Amino acid sequence: MPAQVSSERILFTRGVPAVEALPNKLLSECFQAVLEGPEAKTVLQYGHNSGYLPLRQLLGEQYGVAPEQIVVGNGSLHLQDLLSALLIKAGDVVFVEQPSYDRAIKTFRRRGAKVIGIPLEQDGVNIAALEQALARQVPAFMYIVPDFQNPAGVTTSLEKRQALVDLAERYKFWLLEDIPYRTLRYSGNSLPMLRELNANRVLTVSSYSKLISPALRVGYLIGPVEIAKKLASLEEETILAPVLPTEAAVVEFHKRGYFEQNLNNLKQLYAPRLQALIAALKTHLPDVPFAEPEGGFFVSITLPKEAVKGNLLERARQTGLILTDGRDFFADPFSDDEEPDLGTRFVRLPFCALTPEQINEGVKRLAALVR
Amino acid sequence: MPAQVSSERILFTRGVPAVEALPNKLLSECFQAVLEGPEAKTVLQYGHNSGYLPLRQLLGEQYGVAPEQIVVGNGSLHLQDLLSALLIKAGDVVFVEQPSYDRAIKTFRRRGAKVIGIPLEQDGVNIAALEQALARQVPAFMYIVPDFQNPAGVTTSLEKRQALVDLAERYKFWLLEDIPYRTLRYSGNSLPMLRELNANRVLTVSSYSKLISPALRVGYLIGPVEIAKKLASLEEETILAPVLPTEAAVVEFHKRGYFEQNLNNLKQLYAPRLQALIAALKTHLPDVPFAEPEGGFFVSITLPKEAVKGNLLERARQTGLILTDGRDFFADPFSDDEEPDLGTRFVRLPFCALTPEQINEGVKRLAALVR
Repeated sequence: MPAQVSSERILFTRGVPAVEALPNKLLSECFQAVLEGPEAKTVLQYGHNSGYLPLRQLLGEQYGVAPEQIVVGNGSLHLQDLLSALLIKAGDVVFVEQPSYDRAIKTFRRRGAKVIGIPLEQDGVNIAALEQALARQVPAFMYIVPDFQNPAGVTTSLEKRQALVDLAERYKFWLLEDIPYRTLRYSGNSLPMLRELNANRVLTVSSYSKLISPALRVGYLIGPVEIAKKLASLEEETILAPVLPTEAAVVEFHKRGYFEQNLNNLKQLYAPRLQALIAALKTHLPDVPFAEPEGGFFVSITLPKEAVKGNLLERARQTGLILTDGRDFFADPFSDDEEPDLGTRFVRLPFCALTPEQINEGVKRLAALVR
Repeated sequence: MPAQVSSERILFTRGVPAVEALPNKLLSECFQAVLEGPEAKTVLQYGHNSGYLPLRQLLGEQYGVAPEQIVVGNGSLHLQDLLSALLIKAGDVVFVEQPSYDRAIKTFRRRGAKVIGIPLEQDGVNIAALEQALARQVPAFMYIVPDFQNPAGVTTSLEKRQALVDLAERYKFWLLEDIPYRTLRYSGNSLPMLRELNANRVLTVSSYSKLISPALRVGYLIGPVEIAKKLASLEEETILAPVLPTEAAVVEFHKRGYFEQNLNNLKQLYAPRLQALIAALKTHLPDVPFAEPEGGFFVSITLPKEAVKGNLLERARQTGLILTDGRDFFADPFSDDEEPDLGTRFVRLPFCALTPEQINEGVKRLAALVR
């Protein structure tokens, strides 16, 4: 008999920020400053087609690149869509980590690529498997979330980062590194970005969705000038320009020191939630190994084969535990010949929007289902 | 010898609002109210994937449709791009008025359509030419700007509006009516929207770019629920959701009565500019006929054949008069067998961002070049 559980619904679904952490008052001040300051008319008029120049300058300083190397879009998914339109030609493949971010997989497919999953281990993709895949076909690009990966929570080791850029150089393909969680590190030290290892082969995308607010939809891409130019031109043809006042508010948010302040708040809120999740997994599912992340939004587990009986999602739902279908993160379920349906026992656990109590209760319910 | 002209640069280029008319203070109040009010957290979190529900409710009341029939996007061009992805199949044609909005033409082409121009007369498209084109191939849709057309300034007559929806019904194609200027009427009375004549065959797009601020990039599409659903789903896959705080600010702008107030300001500012342009054309180019609009952003003229010598754009530039290449508005220059290069003598004159003095001076310079 499972232990008695509370009837509260617990959502381990998408990676959403904690609602209490959304800095509405600070943003209100920033919008006011922008719309009543000297740039007010500029940020309400047509213009700044690759993104608001002061934001590109600010990012340029942060990343040590020229503003001409940066394109701002309405969220990073938007930029991934445009980039896919630019880079994917008929017959192309795109490589992703397996598992990977479900919306990215869908985007690459919708833009015409065959998406191939390279198995992800606890320290990054399996490099031998990547080499085998490269020997068959070189991709238009490979999509990587090197820090606190979505969905697995894995951080790619320095050794594997180096191997990735070396292979990208040797086989001449782009690495698209997506780093929205990188700054949300609760312990330990950051490894170099892929672009720091070889900027000529790397396109970097990130956004403020997890760092300020997802509804602002301010994302950006950094790459060589010739790619940034083509992307900006496609962006102009498609949407004219990204929304300006939100970009200007982000610049103001930085200028006032709110970015650091808010980041610290987020870390203080999210770090104990991550610790609660790790502790709950070790308590309630002691035999299930998992990568212990030092930041980000996600921990994931792969349940033992014998543990998953029936429809796990539906059985979880009946206990008020809402999970995402793990299969969505597997671009290429048949790449694992031994078990084509690995996704059915893959469970992503986004922890940021849940209290430690909810996290513990959720993991307890999950454990009861697979006992 | 041309008369001596001032050296000030005059831009008759794109249709931009007057910078002094951008309501930055009012918008600042609205952002503040939104970000410090009860909806603050909602408009900063993920959600509202087809657009902010209160905005869709407000538009639903205005247009007499259900919120489920409305999809909000980051500007109407964005929605035209998504709609094109949805409706245009390989081998499809799209019909446009000839001349038509250059960015729309490019969008339909980039999404794979062959774009066919139907000659535009002073009261709307030539219906006989449209019938001939329909006899050859029925388009995926026909793109129409029925009110104060961009670039020509033409308003389609009631008779031709009826003919358009009748043909759309008979041949079963969509009419995509784009009405961003409709509300900016400085005199006379509005004719019914195409959707009022037959909502089953009409998709309506519009935006707040000309009515509040272009940098907000708040546009919307209205159509049957099944189209709106498909479009919203493609939008979610592509960008997750349109930017939320800007949409919420637009709702607040309406709630506070600022929309009507601002619209009246715009009319008071723009009406004399339109009058100045009409007067200048009658004074300096008395033999060139043109459609006299009662609203909007544009008047256009087609210069007499014999008047255009050499490269008009370059010659104008040398006098500080900056024009847009008229050929960009002609999707299909060869549809007019008598004169394939009609666009070279087509001049669009956007008047909203120029003072009456600048308008008069600009037309004087243009007249001196073609005398």
